[in-house]
Amino acid sequence: MKALVLAAGRSKRMKPVEDKNFLKFLGKPLLMWQVEMVKKAGFEEIVVVGGAHNLSRIKALFGEMVQVVEQNDLEEGMCGAVLAGREIIGDCAVMIFSSNDVVDESAFELIKEAFERGDADSYLLGKKVDKYFPGGYLEVDEDGLIKNIVEKPGEGKEPSDMVNLVVHLHKDSAKLFEYLAKVKSDADDKYEVALAEMMKDEVTMKAVSYDGFWQPIKYPWHVNPVFKYFFEKAEKGVAKSAKIAEKAIVRGDVIIGENVKIFDNAVVQGPCYIGDNSVIANNALVRESHIGSGCVIGFSSEVARSFLGNEVWTHSNYIGDSILGNNVSFGAGAVTGNLRLDEKNIVVDGVDSGSNKLGLICGDNVRVGVNTSLMPGVKIGSGSFIGAGIVVAQDVEPKSFVRGSWELKISENKTNISSDRENFRKKL
Amino acid sequence: MKALVLAAGRSKRMKPVEDKNFLKFLGKPLLMWQVEMVKKAGFEEIVVVGGAHNLSRIKALFGEMVQVVEQNDLEEGMCGAVLAGREIIGDCAVMIFSSNDVVDESAFELIKEAFERGDADSYLLGKKVDKYFPGGYLEVDEDGLIKNIVEKPGEGKEPSDMVNLVVHLHKDSAKLFEYLAKVKSDADDKYEVALAEMMKDEVTMKAVSYDGFWQPIKYPWHVNPVFKYFFEKAEKGVAKSAKIAEKAIVRGDVIIGENVKIFDNAVVQGPCYIGDNSVIANNALVRESHIGSGCVIGFSSEVARSFLGNEVWTHSNYIGDSILGNNVSFGAGAVTGNLRLDEKNIVVDGVDSGSNKLGLICGDNVRVGVNTSLMPGVKIGSGSFIGAGIVVAQDVEPKSFVRGSWELKISENKTNISSDRENFRKKL
Amino acid sequence: MKALVLAAGRSKRMKPVEDKNFLKFLGKPLLMWQVEMVKKAGFEEIVVVGGAHNLSRIKALFGEMVQVVEQNDLEEGMCGAVLAGREIIGDCAVMIFSSNDVVDESAFELIKEAFERGDADSYLLGKKVDKYFPGGYLEVDEDGLIKNIVEKPGEGKEPSDMVNLVVHLHKDSAKLFEYLAKVKSDADDKYEVALAEMMKDEVTMKAVSYDGFWQPIKYPWHVNPVFKYFFEKAEKGVAKSAKIAEKAIVRGDVIIGENVKIFDNAVVQGPCYIGDNSVIANNALVRESHIGSGCVIGFSSEVARSFLGNEVWTHSNYIGDSILGNNVSFGAGAVTGNLRLDEKNIVVDGVDSGSNKLGLICGDNVRVGVNTSLMPGVKIGSGSFIGAGIVVAQDVEPKSFVRGSWELKISENKTNISSDRENFRKKL
Repeated sequence: MKALVLAAGRSKRMKPVEDKNFLKFLGKPLLMWQVEMVKKAGFEEIVVVGGAHNLSRIKALFGEMVQVVEQNDLEEGMCGAVLAGREIIGDCAVMIFSSNDVVDESAFELIKEAFERGDADSYLLGKKVDKYFPGGYLEVDEDGLIKNIVEKPGEGKEPSDMVNLVVHLHKDSAKLFEYLAKVKSDADDKYEVALAEMMKDEVTMKAVSYDGFWQPIKYPWHVNPVFKYFFEKAEKGVAKSAKIAEKAIVRGDVIIGENVKIFDNAVVQGPCYIGDNSVIANNALVRESHIGSGCVIGFSSEVARSFLGNEVWTHSNYIGDSILGNNVSFGAGAVTGNLRLDEKNIVVDGVDSGSNKLGLICGDNVRVGVNTSLMPGVKIGSGSFIGAGIVVAQDVEPKSFVRGSWELKISENKTNISSDRENFRKKL
Repeated sequence: MKALVLAAGRSKRMKPVEDKNFLKFLGKPLLMWQVEMVKKAGFEEIVVVGGAHNLSRIKALFGEMVQVVEQNDLEEGMCGAVLAGREIIGDCAVMIFSSNDVVDESAFELIKEAFERGDADSYLLGKKVDKYFPGGYLEVDEDGLIKNIVEKPGEGKEPSDMVNLVVHLHKDSAKLFEYLAKVKSDADDKYEVALAEMMKDEVTMKAVSYDGFWQPIKYPWHVNPVFKYFFEKAEKGVAKSAKIAEKAIVRGDVIIGENVKIFDNAVVQGPCYIGDNSVIANNALVRESHIGSGCVIGFSSEVARSFLGNEVWTHSNYIGDSILGNNVSFGAGAVTGNLRLDEKNIVVDGVDSGSNKLGLICGDNVRVGVNTSLMPGVKIGSGSFIGAGIVVAQDVEPKSFVRGSWELKISENKTNISSDRENFRKKL
Repeated sequence: MKALVLAAGRSKRMKPVEDKNFLKFLGKPLLMWQVEMVKKAGFEEIVVVGGAHNLSRIKALFGEMVQVVEQNDLEEGMCGAVLAGREIIGDCAVMIFSSNDVVDESAFELIKEAFERGDADSYLLGKKVDKYFPGGYLEVDEDGLIKNIVEKPGEGKEPSDMVNLVVHLHKDSAKLFEYLAKVKSDADDKYEVALAEMMKDEVTMKAVSYDGFWQPIKYPWHVNPVFKYFFEKAEKGVAKSAKIAEKAIVRGDVIIGENVKIFDNAVVQGPCYIGDNSVIANNALVRESHIGSGCVIGFSSEVARSFLGNEVWTHSNYIGDSILGNNVSFGAGAVTGNLRLDEKNIVVDGVDSGSNKLGLICGDNVRVGVNTSLMPGVKIGSGSFIGAGIVVAQDVEPKSFVRGSWELKISENKTNISSDRENFRKKL
């Protein structure tokens, strides 16, 4: 039995966050977290499907740990991704998992156990939901057999409480590949159409009910719940080489890396991850956040409910509900707005983020000038410079230089400010 | 003997602060503070005069505690207000008090004692002043009888050092009402004209000299001294349910309400009142201020010499010498300027506030965007939104949406910021 | 033997910092530091050369301690300055020192010792450099005699590793004056030309090698290294009358003056000098900086690597790598940018400051409005007002009033912010 991990997606909806598979949570890339869980659940032979854009990075990341194949035509979607594994999988049983979802390792264990104990041809993971989610629902008959996958049935019309997650185990991969190869559809759902054809031809499929963690990682704001999930699973603690000043305050669950320095009067309120070599300066506040390595959270900055990559520098800033890449730096007084004046949900590119709190979404290698305001949900592309003292209420393309445009009025100052000390003192 | 409390005024000069009678000091509306003092001084039957705009609120506030009558024509001023009580007062002795002034309860005691021990027909409270105040002065003869009330005599021309405060006790209210009913004057001073007529007709009036606290509450900047006065009188202490973090600092006299939370590194420097359920977050500073209930003074905010109503939220702001209503919220980095560059007194609507330090005057239900600057003495009407990153140097009408207007210049960024760590590190 | 201290320069390149000779380091004017060092090295009779612009200040500063002469024509440069001392010096030996350079007192000792033990006619201090500096190099023959002073030879073409510093001792001042009086040159180098003539005429000159501290003080950014040098030499400690709150943090080497107050949660990270009567308020951070007397470093301000004169007031500001005069005050949220977005060196008036970190250069009696941004290396002339909420990216002439220019868009706010508590609470 092999596992086929689909990781050829181009993370378009995650932009300007770069390829999500390599986004480091607690210092480890997402794809590594996922492959390790698959392995831990007992799948020893793992094949990862990549695309031209990330194939070499995947290979470099895993070395001998997995086999890597390329999906040549990324337009072929999930069907094409699975078919890319045809040769290497051959005809053994195959567990297919899309790296677009983060699930608990128990999901892999459940499907494996069901397969080992059961007699169906295929097993599909059904995530139990207690409110409507616009996905594909598993329609199951009295014998527990899946009759159909109903896409977005609408609230109240769900055929069951189980949403189809791409954790699928097929006994006969050769048959699957055969159906996939011959499926006729112009749409994006060829894989699902193939499954439907198989069901029609009496290939038996059973639902495996799953009640654990599930988070699709499709939009940038999905990063934070995934961080929290990995954080909960990880061992907490403070590295021996970390230096926490006597008057620094560290509360709640934290993971603090090697050579981290936390200065006097800084407050770290868990859950927080602080990567190696980062500095939390005097009077800074970090709460419920992921701070990558080599970051400096400067004097009087607050970072709240945010995900920061490596080498992010803040300085008297407020960074709230934001997702920032690597090598990003903020001038003093720059602020991420994270709540609309009308307190409505933040909508990004027409997609409701589901929350009224969302800050900045920022790529890599970005500089932001002093006292600049970044409006809720704004996206800044990698390699951009944002000038000082402006309000950015629109998305910024990668490698842009955004400046303010204003005129100063200069006249003679006719007031003579006395340097008289007593008068001056009254101001205190 | 009854007390007639005049509370029908429309607080126009207090705008955008809403009806001052209901402004809560230390959780208790101003009018309740005043009526309680009158009661404590021995006036058991109290009649409050309201107007259409506040009659039901007055009734709801006091229940059975006082009787409430309506002044129908608010244009009739104080004369009309007193006459509104004609029927309910009848012909017993009446102490008239205007809620426009805040005085110590000893003022009521003094006038009551003078009346009980003396033989004059009326007693008027004379506030001793040691410098010129532009009010009405009591002109008194060698027998202690008031001969005249001289309005704004001009500095150096005062007939005495006693300013007429509306704490007046008349033995024969029937006679007072009679004079008030027949007074002929187009001006705003019918009540004073009636008193003058009475004096002419040999109704004897005596001055009761008073040296205690007095603060007219006419303009928003009068709120702070009144707060300080009530604070001094109140019992200090910290509610048992309040949670003050180990590394929070509380100094001086404070009143801290139920369920208040003060986080680590916060500093509260008395005199300070902090209402129930409010939060003073990490590294915030509150000094010499009134914080209503349900407020959050967020990270790294300073609130100095200010009066905040309920549910005010700050976040890395400076709020200095300001008066804010209820449900007001500031984005990170928004600042109230409270001192002109030339350090001159702040003038509001042509009225000199008497101080070179005055910040924002803000109504209820207001939102202010991040990094916005509010100039000294600016008034923001209730229900308004103030956008991000702007400078507001003018008054804002209620229910306004104020936005900046600018253009950003966007070009290609030709600089390639290296992510080289060593280079980056040099910046620290 | 006398010492002639040249202090008639007009500090043009230091503008808007006023006459550098009177710039107070640790409470003592630069010129006093220098004269005291000369005196300590054994030069008992000191003559200071001033100009019309500073003669009375020099006299007032030193009283009987030195003799003061005036250089009438400042266009005559160093040659004119030395000649101004002709009468008062007479024909004794003279040590000439330019106050444009800060050197260790050992420099004066070295040259004096060399003169006392040696037999040359003149001694010139040669500062050993280990990398190219664009100054005048001493060309020395096998006998140790100076053959020439080579101005800016270019890197790799230096005749020695010794740069000519104006710490020169001449045995026969009468002869020096004679050569100076007759030198013919239109250029700025008459003094050097005279020395060259003397060498040609077999006046023997020897180099005295010096390896100690040297800092020309020509541009504003030279102030900080000079501060650090004086700080290192000075006695550290905290005045008895200073009050450091229990929860204030003071680390590293500091000099804290009389009546200084350091409030709770403030952090002072040495090396720091804090002058008499200054206040470091709650949650402020001062590091590696010189704070003059009567300053207030307000709540949540950071002052880093900066030189502040007297009576500078900050308030929730970031002041980094800046040089500020006296009586300067910043509104809350005003920020000195100190790093370009592209992280290149800051260039001021075409001169590379040699560092990618440089903040504001500010004269005396300046006010800066709230939330204003001052770009790296900007100079603000004395007596200027800078309005609120603007970005100043250009130099500002003395006595200017700089204001923003914008339009606000005001419309009706159609959103009704509910004051519903539960909804409100969700924002926390």
